[in-house]
Amino acid sequence: MEKARLQPLKGFRDFLPEQAKKREFVINTLKEVFSSYGFEPLETPALEYSSVLLKKYGKEAEKLIYQFKDRGDRDIGLRYDFTVPLARFMATNPNLSLPFKRYQIGPIWRAEKPQAGRFREIWQADIDTVGVKIVFADAEIINCALEVMKDLGFRNYSMKINDRQIFQDYGLSLKAITELDKKEKEGTEPFLKELMTEGKTEKETQGIYQKIIKTKKTKALEDLFSFLDEKRVSFDPTLARGLDYYNSIIFELRVSQYGNLSVGGGGRYDNLIGQFAERDIPATGFSFGIDRLIEAMEQQGLFKKIKTTSSQILVTVFSPEYLEKSIELSKILRQNKMRVEVYLKEDKLDKQIKYADKKGIKYVIILGPDEEKSGTVTVKNMEKGSQETIPQEKLEDYFNN
Amino acid sequence: MEKARLQPLKGFRDFLPEQAKKREFVINTLKEVFSSYGFEPLETPALEYSSVLLKKYGKEAEKLIYQFKDRGDRDIGLRYDFTVPLARFMATNPNLSLPFKRYQIGPIWRAEKPQAGRFREIWQADIDTVGVKIVFADAEIINCALEVMKDLGFRNYSMKINDRQIFQDYGLSLKAITELDKKEKEGTEPFLKELMTEGKTEKETQGIYQKIIKTKKTKALEDLFSFLDEKRVSFDPTLARGLDYYNSIIFELRVSQYGNLSVGGGGRYDNLIGQFAERDIPATGFSFGIDRLIEAMEQQGLFKKIKTTSSQILVTVFSPEYLEKSIELSKILRQNKMRVEVYLKEDKLDKQIKYADKKGIKYVIILGPDEEKSGTVTVKNMEKGSQETIPQEKLEDYFNN
Repeated sequence: MEKARLQPLKGFRDFLPEQAKKREFVINTLKEVFSSYGFEPLETPALEYSSVLLKKYGKEAEKLIYQFKDRGDRDIGLRYDFTVPLARFMATNPNLSLPFKRYQIGPIWRAEKPQAGRFREIWQADIDTVGVKIVFADAEIINCALEVMKDLGFRNYSMKINDRQIFQDYGLSLKAITELDKKEKEGTEPFLKELMTEGKTEKETQGIYQKIIKTKKTKALEDLFSFLDEKRVSFDPTLARGLDYYNSIIFELRVSQYGNLSVGGGGRYDNLIGQFAERDIPATGFSFGIDRLIEAMEQQGLFKKIKTTSSQILVTVFSPEYLEKSIELSKILRQNKMRVEVYLKEDKLDKQIKYADKKGIKYVIILGPDEEKSGTVTVKNMEKGSQETIPQEKLEDYFNN
Repeated sequence: MEKARLQPLKGFRDFLPEQAKKREFVINTLKEVFSSYGFEPLETPALEYSSVLLKKYGKEAEKLIYQFKDRGDRDIGLRYDFTVPLARFMATNPNLSLPFKRYQIGPIWRAEKPQAGRFREIWQADIDTVGVKIVFADAEIINCALEVMKDLGFRNYSMKINDRQIFQDYGLSLKAITELDKKEKEGTEPFLKELMTEGKTEKETQGIYQKIIKTKKTKALEDLFSFLDEKRVSFDPTLARGLDYYNSIIFELRVSQYGNLSVGGGGRYDNLIGQFAERDIPATGFSFGIDRLIEAMEQQGLFKKIKTTSSQILVTVFSPEYLEKSIELSKILRQNKMRVEVYLKEDKLDKQIKYADKKGIKYVIILGPDEEKSGTVTVKNMEKGSQETIPQEKLEDYFNN
């Protein structure tokens, strides 16, 4: 057998406790805000039939799907996003009452070339409202996404909004829209070139771009903006978004001081689900990139206030004979909702206290012969460097205040 | 292209909101109890090199791992449990301070033959303490698992405990131990037969089984039991557990009225991690089967008290002109931590109220011309079938009480 490799796979990551706790904090915040808007959890599997996965992403994406054959010779693959599985789910469950508002949070997989900041296992958090065409549904999605940002502690963030109808009015091809989507990284050259390839003269292409820039809000955009917080949203007639299934309102969420990268995006896709379900089912949705959200939060120091220590209290073990007493004590503290660790080795007190210090545990409790005699415990406050002797029966009060 | 199939893959499931909310409730409870014992979250990827996955499960398990080649021609596979990825992680991070106490919760994948109650995507919740041999570490794992059961609302549950040392003392092969593990489903025949295959006479095999039954607690078990809640734990010298890496204390958690199926199990495995890390790293751990926990909770009616509605309040929309006012109202309610849905279609009030009824939403708020004139809103309590007219500025008080 090949020698086992000791690293995670290329493009994959282990999240150590400190990082994993940040992720849990962000995910909990997302769930809270999503729920407050009436979105409910839905879980679809990590694996789907390839025929499902390949149905709608377009050629470029197909190369990026992890596909293989299972032992039953079925063509299967790892999900590439949550939108196509949602479309498959809506077809599987034709009797769901509409509108159906769901969220899904978890990993998706893309066989991309790993680079700095680009991974193959990516965490996303999606909300979608399925079954209504009313533009207010898009507004709710946008307001919900903006509220997530506020609750995560961001101060500078904004949503760019556009209507794909504008591109249709100028007769832009899907390829041209995809090139336009790259304008912040690569300029407008690729876009103009594409238009020329499609038979326009150089002068005409410049004219089209100038016209797009000056386009006014569509009726759908006017309606939409009346429901939004004007400080956070802006109309950008050049916003394109890469995915080909959007057909109307599209939006992209950006954090200032975070370069040109977006932390999420979405839009209306009224024709995707119907292709699976074989009936007309409009939908609109938004997807957060959790990895990018966390990166932006770290850059802006928003995690300062999150406690990244799991345990609040270390109960030391004076000597093996005192182990049972220390356990009793830890049980009482846990019943009072404290996060407690009992020291797991036979070491001197000094070493036990150092362990708490290293792990950032705030309180250390000592229960030895002196304390036993007087019915007390010694509590060291590691942050203040102080210690107190407290009657055992008053310990709960101590930690509840 | 092949027509997309509309069902989830065989052996895989979609979890609709009601079911997904139960799962979130169970997972949150697990996290809370795990944290209260000082376990911290760790996340490893869904995919690993095959050489890692194949290193330790034994022949039978190898057939059940989803393996394939990625586009870089690497042999990779989906994780089969959280224990081998943990061992690989410990080798990847040689400078972690020990003991290292982590939990991991998520899906694992097994290419099993799907049957009633047996799936290919299975959710597990693991806790492990790495780096200490002291039997008190096993006790903490067991106590923590039992506390999860209490907090989930179970009344009848118990932990069977054994020491694999006993089997070594009788010279049992790993194959024989595996056969013994099946005794509740298939009786002792396969076990006795295996002993005979290994050269024992029929009389000798019967003698060995009788001796095992009468074995007394080992020193490790005596120590262990002194730290445990005697009502919930019992010594069973025939408890075997299938996995071959356990070397000392093993345990299995059962729910009464749930047949002979266990909802979780674990034990001490002092020699697995060292094989990855090339140094001696003892460990002990426990794994909950989340799907089985939920099945048992459903059988015992333990989900009755969980609210499975996402939204608490439906704000109706009297007519399109009242949409903005309804949105304003929903914002205020959300700021007060309520879960609010605004009705998303242009329908008559009757139909909106029916929607709330169908979804089990408790309160419906109406804001129309009458209410606007008098600065009030109408609140319907759907459970009581009553309704009240409340001044808008008193709405917060109404829901806070």
